[in-house]
Amino acid sequence: MSDYRFINACFSKPVDRTPVWLMRQAGRYMEEYRAVRAKVDFLTLCKSPELCTEVTLQPIDKFGIDAAILFSDILIPVEAMGAKLDFNPAPVFEKPIRTQADVDALRVIDPEADVPFVPETVKMLRRELESCNVPLIGFAGAPFTLASYMVEGGGSRSFQNLKTMMWSAPKVYRSLMEKLTETVIKYLNAQVDAGAQAIQIFDTWGGVLSPADYLNFVMPYTRLVIQGIKTSPEGDKVPVINFVGNSQGFLPLVAQAGGDVIGIDWRIDIAAARNQVGRKAVQGNMDPIFLLAPIPEIEKRVKEILAAAGDTGHVFNLGHGIIPETPPEHVKALVDFVHEHGESHRVK
Amino acid sequence: MSDYRFINACFSKPVDRTPVWLMRQAGRYMEEYRAVRAKVDFLTLCKSPELCTEVTLQPIDKFGIDAAILFSDILIPVEAMGAKLDFNPAPVFEKPIRTQADVDALRVIDPEADVPFVPETVKMLRRELESCNVPLIGFAGAPFTLASYMVEGGGSRSFQNLKTMMWSAPKVYRSLMEKLTETVIKYLNAQVDAGAQAIQIFDTWGGVLSPADYLNFVMPYTRLVIQGIKTSPEGDKVPVINFVGNSQGFLPLVAQAGGDVIGIDWRIDIAAARNQVGRKAVQGNMDPIFLLAPIPEIEKRVKEILAAAGDTGHVFNLGHGIIPETPPEHVKALVDFVHEHGESHRVK
Repeated sequence: MSDYRFINACFSKPVDRTPVWLMRQAGRYMEEYRAVRAKVDFLTLCKSPELCTEVTLQPIDKFGIDAAILFSDILIPVEAMGAKLDFNPAPVFEKPIRTQADVDALRVIDPEADVPFVPETVKMLRRELESCNVPLIGFAGAPFTLASYMVEGGGSRSFQNLKTMMWSAPKVYRSLMEKLTETVIKYLNAQVDAGAQAIQIFDTWGGVLSPADYLNFVMPYTRLVIQGIKTSPEGDKVPVINFVGNSQGFLPLVAQAGGDVIGIDWRIDIAAARNQVGRKAVQGNMDPIFLLAPIPEIEKRVKEILAAAGDTGHVFNLGHGIIPETPPEHVKALVDFVHEHGESHRVK
Repeated sequence: MSDYRFINACFSKPVDRTPVWLMRQAGRYMEEYRAVRAKVDFLTLCKSPELCTEVTLQPIDKFGIDAAILFSDILIPVEAMGAKLDFNPAPVFEKPIRTQADVDALRVIDPEADVPFVPETVKMLRRELESCNVPLIGFAGAPFTLASYMVEGGGSRSFQNLKTMMWSAPKVYRSLMEKLTETVIKYLNAQVDAGAQAIQIFDTWGGVLSPADYLNFVMPYTRLVIQGIKTSPEGDKVPVINFVGNSQGFLPLVAQAGGDVIGIDWRIDIAAARNQVGRKAVQGNMDPIFLLAPIPEIEKRVKEILAAAGDTGHVFNLGHGIIPETPPEHVKALVDFVHEHGESHRVK
């Protein structure tokens, strides 16, 4: 048993109450975060361990959340591979990856040399979090989601360049995915070595594919990433949360790809989702826009989700990141409701 | 039994081969369509029966598709309710609907008086289609999808205005949905009276909701719409296709809302989807971007979908509309493959 209810919930062990953290819990909806961002641009923030530590801790201090997640961006290791990146504020790659030569020009990163600020932030955060007894989640984008930004050149609605590469030039696609897989494994293990106590893999865009395409073109790489994550320096198994956005049509495949916890979208009932992921824990699944609803409605929805998810193997979260328009007092109310109702219906 | 394999497939009756039509089969990917659009703007096209008839027939003549669908836009009846609409090219409402007063200012339409060009187009199309023995599908947007454009003021990614109205001002939301439901029923019945032989309801954005919200805030209105559709002037039941985009997380609820055919997204296996919709027929479910794949890959995917869907109660389609970048010769290949392979595996 771990000292942390979050870690125990990830391993489907009994907990005193359901733990809660929120995707993008450190972000623009907080005035404390905006105050930091007023001083530096986004990429500079991501590369400054002191500032990253500061913004990571802001929601922990303010709302009593059960886990901290390293403040960073999924594209940080991609930039280090040699893909020139800008934020305007959405991510834009100067030169989209389209050919074998483009892929060949990328390199697998050495995290200690190429992104030293990331393990440094993790170490700093572990020292700070010791006093409040909160565990730290490290993370990376899944190879497919990283590839989507690189091939599309930024965000996309149709993902037509990436999909066309997959179907028309599978060798180019697979060589890109192999390089990304190797990079992601090294990147995550650098975080584990530095002290990250859990890992979330963000396959934000995996759910734009059919099950057949996910199985053939994504699952093998996600599986390699998850299998490649080392134990902690203390020899403990590090729990892995496998989050694939909008994957409610093929959750059994997501579970097969691996992970101790499967991140669940709000567009499926969490009880139905649980039936599809076997004995794994589930994380989710409130609509992030629901944080804009009146507080009594939030309480009702929290109760419904807790009841549907059941007492063990549930990490409360949203189905996607918090949006900037979210009132911070609603986030506070949500966390308090999960703690209150996630305890009361439990057998002591 | 109908003379049309498309109609028989909708009612899950035996067919000689699987019928196929494609969402947005008349559109910018066709040079014949672009030639018409070079002469008139989009709204003028939608309001010109001769031109609508011409573009509706273009893919029928060119590709041998098994059903025609009225060329129009889901927002045509909404404009007639009094919501000023523009296309730039995405739809934009001059004044988003946000308050009870905004809703009260809208009126339920009288289709014969307010959108006479729609029944007129249907009649013209029926005359033209008689010679090629192809049935005509009429359509409308579902109340929720129409409300989303009206409340957001156009397209959206987060749907936060609509969702916030739903949760914070449910009376305003429901009065809007009631007015839309009444309008959609009248609008669809005007098409049926004019000769539409099947109806598709497009709830393109229904899949942005959680199952709980779909059940509470959408399903009652979709059900009223479907129950409100009359029999044809000849007294025949008109089959209804209920398409809710991205609803693979709550297909049993979509089936409960009604319809003879449930439109299926590509982000779920069609065999798994069929298990969730009871005895209804299914329509789908190729990724529209797959039309950009090499033709031999399209053939493989068509075979997989046909095999997974089974022999009866399947209308082949995409999971969303054709995109403008689609090569027309790939559409031709797709239709031919469905006809070829949708026949060969059938017991004679």
